[in-house]
Amino acid sequence: MSKKTPTILAENITAQSRIFTVQKQELEFSNGTQVSYERLLGSTDGAVLIIPLLDDDHVLLIREYGAGVGRYELGFPKGKVDPGETWKEASIRESQEEVGHLPATVRLLDSVSLAAGYMTHYTHIVLATDLTEDDAEGDEPEPLEVIKWHLSDWHALIQHPEFSEGRAYAALMLLLKERNYI
Amino acid sequence: MSKKTPTILAENITAQSRIFTVQKQELEFSNGTQVSYERLLGSTDGAVLIIPLLDDDHVLLIREYGAGVGRYELGFPKGKVDPGETWKEASIRESQEEVGHLPATVRLLDSVSLAAGYMTHYTHIVLATDLTEDDAEGDEPEPLEVIKWHLSDWHALIQHPEFSEGRAYAALMLLLKERNYI
Repeated sequence: MSKKTPTILAENITAQSRIFTVQKQELEFSNGTQVSYERLLGSTDGAVLIIPLLDDDHVLLIREYGAGVGRYELGFPKGKVDPGETWKEASIRESQEEVGHLPATVRLLDSVSLAAGYMTHYTHIVLATDLTEDDAEGDEPEPLEVIKWHLSDWHALIQHPEFSEGRAYAALMLLLKERNYI
Repeated sequence: MSKKTPTILAENITAQSRIFTVQKQELEFSNGTQVSYERLLGSTDGAVLIIPLLDDDHVLLIREYGAGVGRYELGFPKGKVDPGETWKEASIRESQEEVGHLPATVRLLDSVSLAAGYMTHYTHIVLATDLTEDDAEGDEPEPLEVIKWHLSDWHALIQHPEFSEGRAYAALMLLLKERNYI
């Protein structure tokens, strides 16, 4: 398990848009093989995915249009950690903006990658508890649907055609383990 | 739950590299709000993630350098569905190339997105069973480490610092449900 990570021989930006940056890396593996890879550079501080736990057995989900998949997606509130913000601050802000609840406690459960081979991005999975109703204005183009889900119905959630993100499965699994459902 | 999906007013490619394509979309939501989004276009047929089930309780994992995260990543064998290939053919090919086993049976468990808001990409999660040793040459820069994992040790797997992909959690969760571990 102690294989040496490849040496970076060169790297440069090969494409750039408003929100995406592509970097090319020339790597040399420990066996001498040289390979050129492209990877997508995420924002430095990543994103947060918040699990708003309303009570011992209920979580708040949102239903929001996903421009990537071109349909409404059912999942957890999420957002980028803004420059200068901590993951805690971002979690509290997004929780107020997206599900209208202020958490008194936020706790980092884990951080997940999206595609380890070609994206630097990490999403921090945050359990938000001791919620009180207290909303804040977000930048959504339309009001989000907030849906209360009973944790014992997790089988139905993973079978729901609008619940599709890998990181949402990760959050659900960590939550179910945390609450001793699995 | 019957909210109308936004109307696409315009779309065009704003950045392109060897493997990434960025598309800009102008959308009008049902309330009249117009928003401009960028999204990453994935390959048409997506990718496959294969769960090679060695016997009732063991799965084969791989440990491979992930250029995105810049370290070795522990997870399931994966690969792009090549043009003209079906998900079944891609799953069988990747299973031979990455874990050296030919599955007699492959079954689609689900398809997951990576980031519904800004990626069109889907990964098809495929359960591969009735394995026989039979490898094929892949295009990896170095031999992959293949690791046999007992399903009852799933807690240790999700706590492993090198097991980080959201879609790998999704695959593990579906597998554990399939095998009645959860």
